[in-house]
Amino acid sequence: MSTTIRAATPADVPQILAFIKGLAHYERAPHEVTATEEGLLRDGFGPQPIYHCLIAGHDGVPAGFSLFFFNYSTWKGKPGVYLEDIYVEPEHRGRGIGKALLVETAKFAVEHGCERMQWEVLDWNTPAIDFYRAMGGEFLDEWRNVRLSGDALNRLAVA
Amino acid sequence: MSTTIRAATPADVPQILAFIKGLAHYERAPHEVTATEEGLLRDGFGPQPIYHCLIAGHDGVPAGFSLFFFNYSTWKGKPGVYLEDIYVEPEHRGRGIGKALLVETAKFAVEHGCERMQWEVLDWNTPAIDFYRAMGGEFLDEWRNVRLSGDALNRLAVA
Repeated sequence: MSTTIRAATPADVPQILAFIKGLAHYERAPHEVTATEEGLLRDGFGPQPIYHCLIAGHDGVPAGFSLFFFNYSTWKGKPGVYLEDIYVEPEHRGRGIGKALLVETAKFAVEHGCERMQWEVLDWNTPAIDFYRAMGGEFLDEWRNVRLSGDALNRLAVA
Repeated sequence: MSTTIRAATPADVPQILAFIKGLAHYERAPHEVTATEEGLLRDGFGPQPIYHCLIAGHDGVPAGFSLFFFNYSTWKGKPGVYLEDIYVEPEHRGRGIGKALLVETAKFAVEHGCERMQWEVLDWNTPAIDFYRAMGGEFLDEWRNVRLSGDALNRLAVA
């Protein structure tokens, strides 16, 4: 009954992709994952990694992950950590592994001079919302997220 | 009557800070800006810049800016561009400068292998919302933004 959290290495890439697919399934969008091991290796483990990743293990078995990158607050004039994914395998839930991943991600943020950590939660995910609120999380509900993808992005780029 | 867009240089840092303050004033939070020229210089113009910035000029006068950084889509397995700030000075509005900044930011995204550009808009900013929708922007309203800052972040990091 022991949980460990450690930084991911290139050898973890197949497991990272499996976690990403597991999370997409939980978020009811399993078919939207087109990421490949090659891309994840290139973007997370090159000389200038675009993302960072922590792996949680439980009794030596991979149990979950968090994946994040730096964002930037122009008001603060400081970097922050943006938590893109956090996920614990169904059979390992209820053991505090999600909390342990959040704690280690927060440590990474503080150690890298960040005053903020930010992420998103689906509006129907009440258990997660309650958990984040209890922790002191602030919900920025006056902001709407806008995304421009694929063809619409390409159209704009040649306007 | 000519608009130019160019990448920011270290010499633009005082102007970037002035634009950041102008945008905070428009967003009704002028006192929340604690950024300094030193921090902006360090974070945007070192060997591994955390953010990138474009400066718009109109008839040779600085008129606005966009400031952005890379994010990462685990579903796509690709980087994206996150547009943190876009701003045009009041006296230069209505000349298509905001659109020109968006176009050049989209070009940066496409040239850097991104399939997505994402940003936030305040829910009362109807002109901007209509503008983004007309451009093909998708509103991700099922996601809520959560932020953990300052003391709450430090408490979590030592949990």
